[in-house]
Amino acid sequence: MAKCRWCTKNAIIYMKEHRLALCEDCYPKWFLRMLERTIEKWKMLKKDEKILVAVSGGKDSVAVWYCLSQLGYLVDGVHVVISDTEYSVKSKEAVIKMSQLINRPIHIIDIKKEFGKDISEISKILRRENCSVCSTIKRNLLNKFAYDNNYDVIVTGHNLDDEVATLFGNVLRWNLEYLVRQAPVLPEKEGFAKKVKPFIRFTDEEIRVFVKVKNLAFVEQRCPFSKGATSLVYKDLLNKLEEEMPLTKWTFYSKFLSDFQKLVSSYTTYPKLNFCKICNSPCLLEICALCRIKEKIKQKSAI
Amino acid sequence: MAKCRWCTKNAIIYMKEHRLALCEDCYPKWFLRMLERTIEKWKMLKKDEKILVAVSGGKDSVAVWYCLSQLGYLVDGVHVVISDTEYSVKSKEAVIKMSQLINRPIHIIDIKKEFGKDISEISKILRRENCSVCSTIKRNLLNKFAYDNNYDVIVTGHNLDDEVATLFGNVLRWNLEYLVRQAPVLPEKEGFAKKVKPFIRFTDEEIRVFVKVKNLAFVEQRCPFSKGATSLVYKDLLNKLEEEMPLTKWTFYSKFLSDFQKLVSSYTTYPKLNFCKICNSPCLLEICALCRIKEKIKQKSAI
Repeated sequence: MAKCRWCTKNAIIYMKEHRLALCEDCYPKWFLRMLERTIEKWKMLKKDEKILVAVSGGKDSVAVWYCLSQLGYLVDGVHVVISDTEYSVKSKEAVIKMSQLINRPIHIIDIKKEFGKDISEISKILRRENCSVCSTIKRNLLNKFAYDNNYDVIVTGHNLDDEVATLFGNVLRWNLEYLVRQAPVLPEKEGFAKKVKPFIRFTDEEIRVFVKVKNLAFVEQRCPFSKGATSLVYKDLLNKLEEEMPLTKWTFYSKFLSDFQKLVSSYTTYPKLNFCKICNSPCLLEICALCRIKEKIKQKSAI
Repeated sequence: MAKCRWCTKNAIIYMKEHRLALCEDCYPKWFLRMLERTIEKWKMLKKDEKILVAVSGGKDSVAVWYCLSQLGYLVDGVHVVISDTEYSVKSKEAVIKMSQLINRPIHIIDIKKEFGKDISEISKILRRENCSVCSTIKRNLLNKFAYDNNYDVIVTGHNLDDEVATLFGNVLRWNLEYLVRQAPVLPEKEGFAKKVKPFIRFTDEEIRVFVKVKNLAFVEQRCPFSKGATSLVYKDLLNKLEEEMPLTKWTFYSKFLSDFQKLVSSYTTYPKLNFCKICNSPCLLEICALCRIKEKIKQKSAI
């Protein structure tokens, strides 16, 4: 193994993109410094903002919460319990553990309590892919929670591999509406908190090494409902491409942000804001996504 | 095997995209009809235009020449000999055979006669990938030949798989200049003939079956200089994706044409036309690409 570029110890990671090998002492320092630089570059967070992080219990969200706390940000957590499975139980445990470690409050929202069904049951009723339903529900629950509790910013743990896979899927379908909104920062709109992704500069692997070095607790197993998800197909394929042609992923994503997004910046205007006729939450249609899903579950249960 | 949708015989091909199984009698009819429809849809060719087809001797270009002749277009061929290898000798033979079969003239341009070196030697001098140098040289030779001989249109045999691989490569690098110009029809510009790709609706496999049924002679072996070409990496990867998610390729390409190209149609203006200071051919810079390559070869030979 190579030597650490910053000291004389054995390196534990070599990062092709940065042409940088680092040891277990220097790597976490580099990681936090890179995170700080990303936050500054994109003007993601201010110390006086009321910040909420969405923590699933996976390595990314646990690490982003931990790191922001290390950088001196006061961040509260919110966790959505999606089912009764072992995976969900363990996820909740990991989230609570981090909450205790950094001494910040965690809010728990339980989908089964909210909708009377778990994610897999709701997906069957809606006849949509689990991951798609789960992300719709979580996104809307988070928006509502942030609005009801006056949070300025919602942080998520999306990393480079996540963003590249999403970008890839949106490009394959030339989903322009989604492409335009796939940014590291989505500015605040009346009723909706700002959304930021401070981990966009880190790969899956880089985060995996960080949580290992720091010995952070997280759920290692994959969500049981994500089997066969298209995002996993894309990730697999993009990893193969990266092996054959190093730096493809970062080039694809960074040039998307610098070149493509400039091109289409004038393409969409944000739809007019409404308030849901049922629950009065801010939303873009007459009835918010959550209430629409609840209606469908009710209809199905009535049959 | 399924039955032919149009008659009672056994099908020889099933096309997922069209949900259509056809036998060896009906398939060529469908193929020519689809080709005709593509030509009409994109206003590619008129019967009174002076048409030139670039024929490499591979299945695609041989088939497109044959098919256009079957549809009643009078099309001359032009073939570029890229080296002295067995592949090049066989390619030339296949092209001449088709020329005799459909009784249309073929023009031969020999790169070694033109530049004193073959493609692989030129690529070494320019320190660029073989396929990239070959396509630059061929494109410029064809433009010059069409200009000198008053052709209105240049036809190439690019198929759906070619276009999707090119699109994929351009998207991975967000090569906007190239993306904007990747169209089934590039209109005529002063000095440059119109360029059309009538085979964009056919996959590699569909063309392979067509030439087999029609027993057309073509070079089966791959160009010896194309080994490791990035376009082959992309094709391989896209085929794997297509297996997991059928219709991905066609969706990616057709939505690119319908949605993305509209978005960027105002993005680039065509550069001003010049005439090469050395050979007086139409070009976009002061000296045309061919003369620039000749200069570099001369410099290298002088060392």
